[in-house]
Amino acid sequence: MNYPSGTKKTNLVVKDHNNIIYKNRGMTLESEINLSNEYYQEMDKAYIYKKPTPIKITKVDYPSRDKAVIKEAFFTIPSTTDYNGIYKGKYIDFEAKETKSTTSFTLNNIHPHQIKHLSNVFNHGGIAFVIIRFTSLNETYLLPAEKLLHFVNNINRKSIPLSFIKENAYLLSDGYRPRIDYLKIVDILIGGI
Amino acid sequence: MNYPSGTKKTNLVVKDHNNIIYKNRGMTLESEINLSNEYYQEMDKAYIYKKPTPIKITKVDYPSRDKAVIKEAFFTIPSTTDYNGIYKGKYIDFEAKETKSTTSFTLNNIHPHQIKHLSNVFNHGGIAFVIIRFTSLNETYLLPAEKLLHFVNNINRKSIPLSFIKENAYLLSDGYRPRIDYLKIVDILIGGI
Repeated sequence: MNYPSGTKKTNLVVKDHNNIIYKNRGMTLESEINLSNEYYQEMDKAYIYKKPTPIKITKVDYPSRDKAVIKEAFFTIPSTTDYNGIYKGKYIDFEAKETKSTTSFTLNNIHPHQIKHLSNVFNHGGIAFVIIRFTSLNETYLLPAEKLLHFVNNINRKSIPLSFIKENAYLLSDGYRPRIDYLKIVDILIGGI
Repeated sequence: MNYPSGTKKTNLVVKDHNNIIYKNRGMTLESEINLSNEYYQEMDKAYIYKKPTPIKITKVDYPSRDKAVIKEAFFTIPSTTDYNGIYKGKYIDFEAKETKSTTSFTLNNIHPHQIKHLSNVFNHGGIAFVIIRFTSLNETYLLPAEKLLHFVNNINRKSIPLSFIKENAYLLSDGYRPRIDYLKIVDILIGGI
């Protein structure tokens, strides 16, 4: 996307009374997924939420009985994914990632622990996947965990080519409410197609 | 439990080659649940894990490109529970709490957001519950979310009497591996008994 030089990328809020939809303009994949999840929850369709960021706390001050202030902490390598929840009684689990590349998705975007996590979820009968947005192409895909695992376990490459994604993932269309209707694809995954 | 004065409560590690089991001695409910979850995972029986502690980060230093240090953060009121995961394809979600009381469990131990969370999980077909340990009695109960919700929505009291828990919850027995075999009770909940 092109922005006039000197203009800061901002998150536009789309108002209900406004018919103009600024598709993806300045809105991160994370924000769009959060909005979609809020919508699903309002509609009582699914209950999917973002997990807290994993950190390691090393110093805490207690200035008073109930007021703890963390004075030093570090971001730790996530052992699970960003999102999980429940839909139609099923356990749903996924990670969402953006890439600026126009040709491939680098695997070091996802930590080995997270791949193991998706594998665990899949093996126990959950619905696991990765949502990948190619920001420069303005294309967002849902790649089922089993396809990702197949790639990681069988193909000795450090990134997943877009061609593999086009063949094995589902293109997610942009919408208004929800912004990204990924549950449509989850329905297909549940159906086993 | 009584400890000789001046002796610090320590978490004894039970070694495999050691036949002595120090039941609960100095081990928190959280540690025992974590060990049980590890055991379930090793046995490939279930995949249940602890969520990161929710915090609000207010100051971060970046001394170098990849090394962020959180300099100020605060513990936030949890909007979800401590544990969730997957068992027999089902979404499992629970909170674990200890109380020193011998007569009741104070409801302000569980935040309203967490009760709402358990309600959401239950309404979407998940298995939701609270594990409550009465440390002074050395009794641990699994209270299904629907029973907790029934109490919260219908009984105008700030704590759940032990008698209600005895009547509506399942007593969890101590074990070695797993320390707390709560999935035995989950099997009953899944069975709908």
